[in-house]
Amino acid sequence: MGADNQQERLDSWIAGFVDGEGCFHVAINRQPKMTLGWQVLPEFRVVQHKKDTQTLRMIQKRVGCGIITVNHDDRNELRVRGINNLMKIVGFFRINKLKTSKLNNFKKFATVIKMMKEGKHLKRTGLKEIAEIAATMNKKIKSKYLESSETIR
Amino acid sequence: MGADNQQERLDSWIAGFVDGEGCFHVAINRQPKMTLGWQVLPEFRVVQHKKDTQTLRMIQKRVGCGIITVNHDDRNELRVRGINNLMKIVGFFRINKLKTSKLNNFKKFATVIKMMKEGKHLKRTGLKEIAEIAATMNKKIKSKYLESSETIR
Repeated sequence: MGADNQQERLDSWIAGFVDGEGCFHVAINRQPKMTLGWQVLPEFRVVQHKKDTQTLRMIQKRVGCGIITVNHDDRNELRVRGINNLMKIVGFFRINKLKTSKLNNFKKFATVIKMMKEGKHLKRTGLKEIAEIAATMNKKIKSKYLESSETIR
Repeated sequence: MGADNQQERLDSWIAGFVDGEGCFHVAINRQPKMTLGWQVLPEFRVVQHKKDTQTLRMIQKRVGCGIITVNHDDRNELRVRGINNLMKIVGFFRINKLKTSKLNNFKKFATVIKMMKEGKHLKRTGLKEIAEIAATMNKKIKSKYLESSETIR
């Protein structure tokens, strides 16, 4: 098996693993220091039992970003934050396609990263648009931003 | 991308997905109709929310065996039973290698399938050996067989 082929197979394995275990998430948190009073915090995360930390390291090495830290109890996570790092993540999964319904979440995530790269989260209209996208990504978590009096009034 | 390459990438994706979501399990159940009074029931399983049943169908089609059935509530599972089907599964994951600690479980599972193919589960010594392997695969579940009075006495 050639080196290119081996790399492709690893990349496809990572896509499969992330389809099962990965999470694309956009939080919008109250942050008085920010101009609009809210911070958009997108994050890519893979959580594993600490016995599989080596797997997280392998993914970290391949995608070229992220830190490995404690999630909770006996679980560690690979966590990627920061627009430039997350652009690498988006680039990776544009080539190595997800196959479950997580693909929809990823597409929304990619849209948010693009908007942030363009600085749209720093304006009220862009922030609201991002909050609306984020609210459809993980329906279990209500958006603190969209529910806040600032948005409602 | 050639057809071979596409197939390889799908296979690697499946290995990654199963590393996250798959389960190799060997149950040993009381079954008075069997000669030794116990039945060895190995099973490969992938559980997904029903919205991702299409993903289960894709894996089913590729591995060429298994049925898709309700797991519980809003979850479906791809379930493979039967020695000949499980030999296909073992063959698949020998080529398309798992990368997490689930690989250890898979290796034990493959050993059990080989022993069953050779009929070793039909003799008391083989059954005990299989029960001992199974007991190390999922430590949360105590072996009913190993704890039974038949084995202890």
